Amino acid sequence: MMANTFKIGVVCVSSRFAKERAEAVEAWMAEHHPEGDIAVTFHPACFMKHGHFAGDDRARADAFVEYANDPRFDAIWFARGGYGSCRIVEDVISRLNDVARTKRYMGYSDVGTLLAGMYKAGFKHLAHGPMASDSVRHDETAERALAWLVKGDEQGLEPSLAIDRKKAVAFNLTIIDQLVGTPLEPDLTDHVLMIEEVSEALYRVDRMMFHLTSQPSIRKVAGIRLGRVSDVTPNDPDFGLTAQEIVRYWCHRSGIPFLGKADIGHDADNKVVPFG
Amino acid sequence: MMANTFKIGVVCVSSRFAKERAEAVEAWMAEHHPEGDIAVTFHPACFMKHGHFAGDDRARADAFVEYANDPRFDAIWFARGGYGSCRIVEDVISRLNDVARTKRYMGYSDVGTLLAGMYKAGFKHLAHGPMASDSVRHDETAERALAWLVKGDEQGLEPSLAIDRKKAVAFNLTIIDQLVGTPLEPDLTDHVLMIEEVSEALYRVDRMMFHLTSQPSIRKVAGIRLGRVSDVTPNDPDFGLTAQEIVRYWCHRSGIPFLGKADIGHDADNKVVPFG
Repeated sequence: MMANTFKIGVVCVSSRFAKERAEAVEAWMAEHHPEGDIAVTFHPACFMKHGHFAGDDRARADAFVEYANDPRFDAIWFARGGYGSCRIVEDVISRLNDVARTKRYMGYSDVGTLLAGMYKAGFKHLAHGPMASDSVRHDETAERALAWLVKGDEQGLEPSLAIDRKKAVAFNLTIIDQLVGTPLEPDLTDHVLMIEEVSEALYRVDRMMFHLTSQPSIRKVAGIRLGRVSDVTPNDPDFGLTAQEIVRYWCHRSGIPFLGKADIGHDADNKVVPFG
Repeated sequence: MMANTFKIGVVCVSSRFAKERAEAVEAWMAEHHPEGDIAVTFHPACFMKHGHFAGDDRARADAFVEYANDPRFDAIWFARGGYGSCRIVEDVISRLNDVARTKRYMGYSDVGTLLAGMYKAGFKHLAHGPMASDSVRHDETAERALAWLVKGDEQGLEPSLAIDRKKAVAFNLTIIDQLVGTPLEPDLTDHVLMIEEVSEALYRVDRMMFHLTSQPSIRKVAGIRLGRVSDVTPNDPDFGLTAQEIVRYWCHRSGIPFLGKADIGHDADNKVVPFG
């Protein structure tokens, strides 16, 4: 490791994480950054198992707080999503120090719950973007994520951000839907809210859009952009509306501007959306 | 039909409904109430099809308003659940007349969204209980539903109601979870909130309990009772907590009293819970 190596701590706040995925990330780094300009270190707690989770709530919270607060790590990358961060966010945020506030953090999907709470708590360097586990399956995805994590590079940003300079956030639809009204919900007034979804039936997307766009707090956003809705769970009979038609309908009905597409999703093309 | 026949109008506000199910209900009524003391009439719109739904939003709303407002019907029974009532509730409630306010209404699952909005609007004779479609598969279930619909009979009430005389409501967990913060959410202060669930993975139950019990409005309930959580979608790996452990955990964490079991669920034993 060089003296000026940029050190990224990788933590897992949600579902179980396979050691083999960590080894794949390390192999990718060795191949693509052999000069040692960037190093990733997986917290050992990533590989713990507690039912559904990567370790129990205490273990996942402690691991994140440890790496976030440690000045030897320059940025924090989330290993993967799944489910589980909502259980630890309030505890975690109360324990983060000033060092933690200087770092960049990147993740999406379930990690959005943690990013939301941190955004509400005033953290300034948060982004919805590729995670360690999925990004290294595609070189471009990984480099896009690392460019922002290491330098705050804007090359990999979601393209509408270059045109529309309003504040923005991005979330998995289910995650923001399950955040509203809780102490973790940030003030999204005048923000562009980008949403994406994976592995949900369209009737659920419709119901979540009812719930989300019915919230007085969400009616204050500058508008909604729709990312990719992929691996849709089949509906029998066919739902009758596409995901975009559903989102347009509820935006229209609730008076929220529908702003078009967002280049985000549970896929290799998932672009970076810094919060704020 | 006798002069004093109690006339029940059946409507469908959610998913498609099969004509064969209506015929099964009519056959059950002919067999069990041949004297014509009770008659059920299915609104023709029950059999319309619009993608996922039993007719488009306008058709479902109009059919419900027509039967609810019509003095020739003494009570309204919902045909089935599924998904879709949230799309029409606000429109429907604005069009209901004083006749509609005198009637009893019974349903559960997706229909809970409509009952919630009606409860908020001051309707006094609403119950979470068996619907037309599923109840006639079991004689006891149907008689329990009809006894309340026709006479307000308390024989089929959820048993804790006889002991605990606090106000109560019952909802499918997903339905109340997707209601909070919307204009349809009733004030449940000092109510016992009974919940049940079907066909959901336990990680989703956990996430919904996070969302539900994090709401300041829900923290005002007198307590939560848990009905049956059935046909649980498998979790791989095993989630690690049972549904009751999940509900206990979030009740404890949020300061909401956990009051034990409720005799409700997506099954033949589903008891009646009048709102209020």
